[in-house]
Amino acid sequence: MTPETARRKMTGTWSAHSPLTDVPAAVDTELAAFFRARHADYDDIDPVVADAVGALELFVTGGGKRLRPVFAWAGLRAALEGGGGSLTAPTGPGDVLRAVSSLEFIQACALIHDDIIDQSDTRRGRPTTHRRFSALHSERGWTGDPARYGESQAILVGDLSFSWADDMFADSGVDAAALTRARQPWRKMRTEVIAGQMLDIALENSGSEDPGAALKVDVYKTAAYTVERPLHLGAALGDADARTVSLLRKVGREIGVAFQLEDDHLGVFGDPAVTGKESGDDLRSGKRTWLLMCALDRADRSDPAAASRLRTGIGAVETDAEIDELRQIIVDSGAAEQNSARVRELTSDAVDTLRSCHLASPFVDELVALAEQLTERRS
Amino acid sequence: MTPETARRKMTGTWSAHSPLTDVPAAVDTELAAFFRARHADYDDIDPVVADAVGALELFVTGGGKRLRPVFAWAGLRAALEGGGGSLTAPTGPGDVLRAVSSLEFIQACALIHDDIIDQSDTRRGRPTTHRRFSALHSERGWTGDPARYGESQAILVGDLSFSWADDMFADSGVDAAALTRARQPWRKMRTEVIAGQMLDIALENSGSEDPGAALKVDVYKTAAYTVERPLHLGAALGDADARTVSLLRKVGREIGVAFQLEDDHLGVFGDPAVTGKESGDDLRSGKRTWLLMCALDRADRSDPAAASRLRTGIGAVETDAEIDELRQIIVDSGAAEQNSARVRELTSDAVDTLRSCHLASPFVDELVALAEQLTERRS
Repeated sequence: MTPETARRKMTGTWSAHSPLTDVPAAVDTELAAFFRARHADYDDIDPVVADAVGALELFVTGGGKRLRPVFAWAGLRAALEGGGGSLTAPTGPGDVLRAVSSLEFIQACALIHDDIIDQSDTRRGRPTTHRRFSALHSERGWTGDPARYGESQAILVGDLSFSWADDMFADSGVDAAALTRARQPWRKMRTEVIAGQMLDIALENSGSEDPGAALKVDVYKTAAYTVERPLHLGAALGDADARTVSLLRKVGREIGVAFQLEDDHLGVFGDPAVTGKESGDDLRSGKRTWLLMCALDRADRSDPAAASRLRTGIGAVETDAEIDELRQIIVDSGAAEQNSARVRELTSDAVDTLRSCHLASPFVDELVALAEQLTERRS
Repeated sequence: MTPETARRKMTGTWSAHSPLTDVPAAVDTELAAFFRARHADYDDIDPVVADAVGALELFVTGGGKRLRPVFAWAGLRAALEGGGGSLTAPTGPGDVLRAVSSLEFIQACALIHDDIIDQSDTRRGRPTTHRRFSALHSERGWTGDPARYGESQAILVGDLSFSWADDMFADSGVDAAALTRARQPWRKMRTEVIAGQMLDIALENSGSEDPGAALKVDVYKTAAYTVERPLHLGAALGDADARTVSLLRKVGREIGVAFQLEDDHLGVFGDPAVTGKESGDDLRSGKRTWLLMCALDRADRSDPAAASRLRTGIGAVETDAEIDELRQIIVDSGAAEQNSARVRELTSDAVDTLRSCHLASPFVDELVALAEQLTERRS
């Protein structure tokens, strides 16, 4: 939390117009308060439950960009700053902040379950939740398979997180009418992210090389869930008019897809010193991105030998020389430039739409800055 | 559905006083309608998503006692029949029926995730959800590990189910004030069942022989989740007074624990022709029940050689002769009779409380009949 945000919170001056850049720290404060109450409610059941609450707390309060709450807050700001909406007493800005903070629990469930699915050992440099419970099993000298135990408890910690998302949202203090308005984006967002994950796993296993299938994963797993629906949710909480909701959803989809495509670019070409990931991470893991599918499709037509090298190398390469070779094929195919052009096109479309829309310009400036930061990033 | 129930539904005569025995069929009708709407909303995303919705539908509409909706409906009936509550327009009995039907989605998530955790191949004679997706993977000749794919998709189908429980509950048509009243039992019920599952897995792995630990699993995983909180939830929806809620919670805990202990008895001594499970199922699988823990504790004191045979045999026995040997040790230890006595004691406590309480006697008769059926059952 910045000292300024801390001061505002302490003096109760978190306002309906608090800037997007203040949201992450304020969300951290809300999450910490939520965990204090949950520890008090549930730790006494058993040390096993207290361990699980602690593991979830470590995960949820362990940082991150808080992108979904930030976009949801942007939706509220849009409603209030030109979008035809209002906050109705007794709902205050702090209640909405609490409601949008709950999105971090959906994200925690998604990541904890994803880490099981991907069999990942670490996340943000720390053991993943299932590995943490496997280690506890081994330390305690228990019987049975530690890996199996870890995955089982992590499935349940994810379920707990999903359940607590609802609790934090519904019990946020936001009035019943606003919660009812928010039901549609809330419902859609959750089904869409799960659908996106299902598509992603199927794509991974089917061996499909259809760029359209990869783009569909981006639309559901990233764009809808991370940007479009959070904006929609915040706008609904703030009672925005229909044209504002429709505008936010459109730019949200564009920003969201651009963000994912930029992420995929960094997964192949990013500088490890900046991204914090291994060089060519997506090439090593064999991630089935739109970038890769386009490269295969283009190389098949222009240079079949290169296409074949890319096809066998993806997910199998290990050395820097091999990584460089695949990178060069992707560049030579024209797919790298196609991906970057698409990011620029989507971003500038979204920015143009925002610049010429009916919302107040100080707010638009903030949202544009965020969109540009997410789609022109180096990390 | 009985023809009578079907007629009531069709002619719109599902009433606030519809009998508990009519609930399962009416719940089936609500669930089928919910799935029709969800197929329409989501099947078009992709065949992968349609498959997942279909798998969840097979699971949810595949029968079962609908115990949680039945107890929640009993909570509403109690509120209205002596419990000081009422249904407030525009909320009608059909809306409450829809709200309590949603509990089947929580149950589906719990079972789908449990089947992954227990690595079960079948449930009710059909392939479990993860096995169903493994089979699809193999049939389609996809790449990667079919078992891993099956578990991954089943984790997500469980998440979808958990999310749809909320949707069906919140969008049931029940008015906002009633939903707000129901928040507390809804919230508690979900955290308690997850906590109970965590305790169960830890018990399984820790090798603990503490009867108290086994009883705690019964309290959270079965009693709170299956009986106490559903009764509480229905009572809250019907705006029952505090003494009614407190009475229902007390008898709910008793009936719930008795139900689980009876289940554990059947798991050791039940007739396969009646239970539909293998003879001595819990002895083969090594389930850590209160019955088993008590038998170990008692035999340690009365017959250490028998205790040692039971300790090494549990989870390892295969033949009918071995099963019979362990059964005899459990009987000789006195634990079998202790378990049955506890079931009778809890049930008669609950029945006595109900018989002498302020609720209308026709309703009490129905609830007592249900309690006795669940705790004196043979299947």
